[in-house]
Amino acid sequence: MLHIEIIATGGTIEKVYSEQTGNVQNLDSKIDRYFRLLRLPDAGIAVTHLMNKDSLEMTDADRETVLLTVREKLAAGAAPIVITHGTDTMVETGLLLQKNLPELRYPIILTGAMTPLGFEASDGLQNLTESLLAARALPAGVYVVMHNQVFPVDRVRKDRELARFVWK
Amino acid sequence: MLHIEIIATGGTIEKVYSEQTGNVQNLDSKIDRYFRLLRLPDAGIAVTHLMNKDSLEMTDADRETVLLTVREKLAAGAAPIVITHGTDTMVETGLLLQKNLPELRYPIILTGAMTPLGFEASDGLQNLTESLLAARALPAGVYVVMHNQVFPVDRVRKDRELARFVWK
Amino acid sequence: MLHIEIIATGGTIEKVYSEQTGNVQNLDSKIDRYFRLLRLPDAGIAVTHLMNKDSLEMTDADRETVLLTVREKLAAGAAPIVITHGTDTMVETGLLLQKNLPELRYPIILTGAMTPLGFEASDGLQNLTESLLAARALPAGVYVVMHNQVFPVDRVRKDRELARFVWK
Amino acid sequence: MLHIEIIATGGTIEKVYSEQTGNVQNLDSKIDRYFRLLRLPDAGIAVTHLMNKDSLEMTDADRETVLLTVREKLAAGAAPIVITHGTDTMVETGLLLQKNLPELRYPIILTGAMTPLGFEASDGLQNLTESLLAARALPAGVYVVMHNQVFPVDRVRKDRELARFVWK
Repeated sequence: MLHIEIIATGGTIEKVYSEQTGNVQNLDSKIDRYFRLLRLPDAGIAVTHLMNKDSLEMTDADRETVLLTVREKLAAGAAPIVITHGTDTMVETGLLLQKNLPELRYPIILTGAMTPLGFEASDGLQNLTESLLAARALPAGVYVVMHNQVFPVDRVRKDRELARFVWK
Repeated sequence: MLHIEIIATGGTIEKVYSEQTGNVQNLDSKIDRYFRLLRLPDAGIAVTHLMNKDSLEMTDADRETVLLTVREKLAAGAAPIVITHGTDTMVETGLLLQKNLPELRYPIILTGAMTPLGFEASDGLQNLTESLLAARALPAGVYVVMHNQVFPVDRVRKDRELARFVWK
Repeated sequence: MLHIEIIATGGTIEKVYSEQTGNVQNLDSKIDRYFRLLRLPDAGIAVTHLMNKDSLEMTDADRETVLLTVREKLAAGAAPIVITHGTDTMVETGLLLQKNLPELRYPIILTGAMTPLGFEASDGLQNLTESLLAARALPAGVYVVMHNQVFPVDRVRKDRELARFVWK
Repeated sequence: MLHIEIIATGGTIEKVYSEQTGNVQNLDSKIDRYFRLLRLPDAGIAVTHLMNKDSLEMTDADRETVLLTVREKLAAGAAPIVITHGTDTMVETGLLLQKNLPELRYPIILTGAMTPLGFEASDGLQNLTESLLAARALPAGVYVVMHNQVFPVDRVRKDRELARFVWK
């Protein structure tokens, strides 16, 4: 049984449609419902709902909180970590982790979505599925995993117009 | 074979999520894709894409265009009509039709959705399904049909907080 | 609030795929999960799980049980009734009801599916949605409602090759 | 752009429900429709529809055909390969490949499903998603990849009662 730590920070992947406002927003976390759609007989998933923010609204203090939480999880026991995160500043958070965790022995996977989980043509469940496999298969390091792509975090940037990540 | 005229005017039921803006908007019409999910062996559906607007942005001229189009369809041949429409001013458009079409011999059904077609927990396909059955089963008149409810258009108002229509 | 009695008897609409046998079978009832996908703010649904049989395996005694249950529901209070049923002998059961309930004051709707609920391209949820609207909109009588079609039970037969009901 | 060869051989993952027979069968291949649900901006997928069989009906000659096709794909150019296959004899086919391809330089992934693609609670799309990431991330070798598990083919057996693969 592989233990995988999930740290949920919000982003598009968690957005919901509000019938009152007619907008998509980060309100209640919904990621757990989607993990339950996956068969994970040999993986123990523990989800920490750290915050639920559009990543454009994440502050430096928020990113420090992510780093602190990752440190705590790593200290508590050896395990890969998957962080769900808004795509706009996912790389920024990832670079902070890479810089401050030089002796990492497990992979840390950042993932998210271009379209919220459960919306038609969403990439969210694909990205969660890939990230959980990447957590099992990749060597130590900090990565962005989405759309069947695996990027070391210092080699990637978001292309907003293409709505995906590309090599840099 | 029952011929049913569909007049699409936009509204939440047609909204799509834009990965570039992160908002839901009336961009391309998607209602045809959802009609294709239904089995209609004995109904001939013809969809007129009249406009694609949030109904809060519909003008008096837009409503006149809807009325004119309904008149044309009725003149061209006897058939029930389903109008997909934003919920905020659906009743206003319906009352205009009722007032100007006193000798209606077929049902006119207004429907829409609280959550866009294809989004998790959307009521859109339910409402389309119900409206097509109502077009077949109801007597002449102008109705709002959604959520297993059938309202004569002069007896209904939207309750925005409950996100549904109620009797008035 | 309209009270609608649901009597579930099985049929394809309730079939599930068994990973152990590789077949589809009538095992656990799943219809309640699908009713929960519908918005029914003004309808009170009560589901009686009477049996869960492929309708080719229903006996005369089973059909009598359906009739008896319908009688009890009608005696207990005025309400339309929706019966979910296998399509192969749906008409036979419906004719028994029609013959034995000559003074019906509410509609009784028989419905089912050609492909089980939740399988790709299933017609099950469409048929449930239509039947609940038909329960509200149709006059007294016994009907088969599926695929946007409304058949009085003495005017319909199943066309197995077309996988739908047709007028007789 | 990573080129990934897909070889489809059938199995439960490809089964469809027949409305005429009421059974699930390997009739038309449907796997392409499900690949189209995935975002693969940096992967070129080529699907070879080799056969469409329940793997209990695969003969030794069928397995030789799979081996031959893999050899041809490997000879034609360097690329990982994903083979979709029935689960009952997936390991047998994999062991044949492992034995006959001792100098493999790319991963060969065998995958399938316990419930057909598109049926409620299907594991098919999860397994396809994982296999495409495994094709990118795993070292050379022959593997079974399903349910967030990665098994070298000589270390795995199917547990029919649990409806999954386990270590042997």
